[in-house]
Amino acid sequence: MPIAPDILARLHAIVGESHVKTDDDSLKHWGCDWTKVRAPAPSAIVFPVSVDQVQGIVRLANEVKLALVPSGGRTGLSAAAVAAEGEVVVSFDRMNRILEFIPEDRLVRLQPGVVTAQLQAYAEERGLYYPVDFASAGSSQIGGNIGTNAGGIKVIKYGMTRHWVLGLKVVTGKGDVLDLNKGMMKNATGYDLRQLFIGGEGTLGFVVEAMMKLDRAPRDLRVMVLGTPDFASVMKVLAAFQKQLDLTAFEFFSELSTQLVTRHQGVPRPFDAATPFYALLEFEATSDKVVDEAMALFESCVEEGWVVDGVMSQNQTQAKTLWRLREGISETISHYTPYKNDLSVLIHHVPAFIADIDGIVADQYPDFRVVWFGHIGDGNLHLNILKPDDMGKDEFFAKCGSVNTRIFETVARYGGSVSAEHGVGLTKKPYLGYSRSPEELAYMKAVKLVFDPNNVMNPGKVFDL
Amino acid sequence: MPIAPDILARLHAIVGESHVKTDDDSLKHWGCDWTKVRAPAPSAIVFPVSVDQVQGIVRLANEVKLALVPSGGRTGLSAAAVAAEGEVVVSFDRMNRILEFIPEDRLVRLQPGVVTAQLQAYAEERGLYYPVDFASAGSSQIGGNIGTNAGGIKVIKYGMTRHWVLGLKVVTGKGDVLDLNKGMMKNATGYDLRQLFIGGEGTLGFVVEAMMKLDRAPRDLRVMVLGTPDFASVMKVLAAFQKQLDLTAFEFFSELSTQLVTRHQGVPRPFDAATPFYALLEFEATSDKVVDEAMALFESCVEEGWVVDGVMSQNQTQAKTLWRLREGISETISHYTPYKNDLSVLIHHVPAFIADIDGIVADQYPDFRVVWFGHIGDGNLHLNILKPDDMGKDEFFAKCGSVNTRIFETVARYGGSVSAEHGVGLTKKPYLGYSRSPEELAYMKAVKLVFDPNNVMNPGKVFDL
Repeated sequence: MPIAPDILARLHAIVGESHVKTDDDSLKHWGCDWTKVRAPAPSAIVFPVSVDQVQGIVRLANEVKLALVPSGGRTGLSAAAVAAEGEVVVSFDRMNRILEFIPEDRLVRLQPGVVTAQLQAYAEERGLYYPVDFASAGSSQIGGNIGTNAGGIKVIKYGMTRHWVLGLKVVTGKGDVLDLNKGMMKNATGYDLRQLFIGGEGTLGFVVEAMMKLDRAPRDLRVMVLGTPDFASVMKVLAAFQKQLDLTAFEFFSELSTQLVTRHQGVPRPFDAATPFYALLEFEATSDKVVDEAMALFESCVEEGWVVDGVMSQNQTQAKTLWRLREGISETISHYTPYKNDLSVLIHHVPAFIADIDGIVADQYPDFRVVWFGHIGDGNLHLNILKPDDMGKDEFFAKCGSVNTRIFETVARYGGSVSAEHGVGLTKKPYLGYSRSPEELAYMKAVKLVFDPNNVMNPGKVFDL
Repeated sequence: MPIAPDILARLHAIVGESHVKTDDDSLKHWGCDWTKVRAPAPSAIVFPVSVDQVQGIVRLANEVKLALVPSGGRTGLSAAAVAAEGEVVVSFDRMNRILEFIPEDRLVRLQPGVVTAQLQAYAEERGLYYPVDFASAGSSQIGGNIGTNAGGIKVIKYGMTRHWVLGLKVVTGKGDVLDLNKGMMKNATGYDLRQLFIGGEGTLGFVVEAMMKLDRAPRDLRVMVLGTPDFASVMKVLAAFQKQLDLTAFEFFSELSTQLVTRHQGVPRPFDAATPFYALLEFEATSDKVVDEAMALFESCVEEGWVVDGVMSQNQTQAKTLWRLREGISETISHYTPYKNDLSVLIHHVPAFIADIDGIVADQYPDFRVVWFGHIGDGNLHLNILKPDDMGKDEFFAKCGSVNTRIFETVARYGGSVSAEHGVGLTKKPYLGYSRSPEELAYMKAVKLVFDPNNVMNPGKVFDL
């Protein structure tokens, strides 16, 4: 859908002619994220460089009823940043500067287009640490992380992105600039509006600046990988270690995932024994005493029969290699056209929940292979169904879609979440009602209209008005 | 203002006749908090025992346009729970049960009337820890803590109440029951409405149930009190220790406060030397190495001239005695009719900010004594101006009121908060504009109308519609 010439001229006036793209390649490139569920079809891509320019674009959108889609690193897994309906994409690629570092407060003020890994490196250079980390950290932008309240592999200790956003400048759907919370740890002056924009997927306003908190750098991280005879043992290992140690991560994955990762990525197996499940845990070895405690815990888990074999990293290279068993999964299974779900239930429900879902898949499609992995320390499970080699993509996705309802009914029965950390976007929108009540949805829509009465900010994402 | 007989009859029908009080003593007792700025004048106190009863009260309020004030432990310092206009007070004293403990998730599901110290003790009995702690923990209720997003003395490590609320059941101003987030650590399914009710001071809805996260119990807490020659040194000590150790607290107070506390509470001085300021810091001595590190830091601070003398607790009794130097301040200065402010600025602004405020007070009222203390590790400063013995209370408060504007102008100049952890209520309402912009206020009011269109929930608190 080509953009109207008068609107194009107004966009040129706001950001400069060279910062509006309408060629096919650009529309395709900036019009989608990692999901590929909808064909990208934006009408233009604009590249603002300042808060004023973003405000100008939003005001124009209100005036001429233009739909805007925010665009960061385009690594999203729920199609929240997909423009498939002729929208104008607002890319933050040019607003990618770190503006200020305040050492006393361990705060970084930055623009939304800063890449996650860039912030991580910036912190490291200053002897500090930005702890939100996940597979796409090399491309994802902080603005997008805030929009989906990104989680990842260190949530058990460090929490979600929400925890690290101490200030947020946004342009609301009405075109107002709000400078929310200004970096303070304590501020009890009425509703914390900042929190609505975190995880708001750009539907209330666009993040144009943020103040991110850093933490002290972790010291001497040790990684253990433990093989367990069954899933129940994974949970017992979690409980035993969590009672004694401050874990910085506790992940799990299955033997099938280990077979695939070792085959595709050339990562060595952690030890000879093959066990149905593996736990990967990480902690700071702040003293020899901590390492001794970890070894004693390992031994008692073996005695209890919860662990068959295990290994502890002795240096950073070994730690990285062990991490690859977990971090290599997403890329590895992408070769098998996986059908992905990102689910969350309370930890004490996890064993029964996994058994129920396995039962549903086995019942309907006994030939499907299921790869479970995830952040078991915070109840977040990634369910991946692999396409059989001899099945067409369309048939496979149709079959997966037909079990979806039963999967999400199970999520609802356990009071869980249909999207733990990937957001709702377009792909989870039909299933939102399994995690949020009709009353909650009604309030969400009313809140949307407070900030974006003309529905110009990422319309059709999360819910339809 | 007596309550209309027909409304009284309807309240009786909802909660039972014996659970509505209209006698003068009860109206006075449940109609106020610790502020005493307004004379309590509610028309009735109701004591619901269930979510259904709260919902019934709110529906009645909408029908007959009744103003409701929520009431917890009544320890608030901003008059958010004061009923001075004939409101009906909804006390949560009878909804005071702990409903469920989920060890795998370290979650406690409870009613809002549970007292903070009750939750702390419940956690301790299970080898766990509820880390939000402050002077009024023995009376304050969890519902009230959530309403003001209570902070206290452990925020530097553990964050505010917000951080520990993983599920929240509320009755909104429209009378809907929302069951928000259900205890999950990860849930990216649209706007996190829970966050609006945390710190919402009961103006959007009333908390009727919460799921609170617990942490592992801290081990072998050590307390150090260090005397510093000036305020700048306090900040240098903070930076030095924070770089090396995971502090669980970092508080400061002045020599005047130490003189008053030792005199009034019989607490011994920490050491012979009297210094202008003191830092109290706390950490977990997880190994001897940590204690050695702390001693080495202490020695290097002495060498740098930042610390004149200091002491480290060798056991829990000593630790408690040292804490009393800080925790005894509020009660001690209450004998001096203090004019209290609860301010927050970014940490790097603290020294200049304190100097500016001291200058303003000294300039206008050179005979006033100022007690500074607070949670310097998170930028939260309690400014207390003491009434001279020979000055009347009215004259004193009038004079303090007249410097207020200059104090809050200074807060605004540093981008700080006029209420770091006490909330807005009635007492900070006139000054809210120093911390929140007109646009933010407009959005807050619009959000209020989404949840409470008839303005029946704690009307006139935080802002006027």
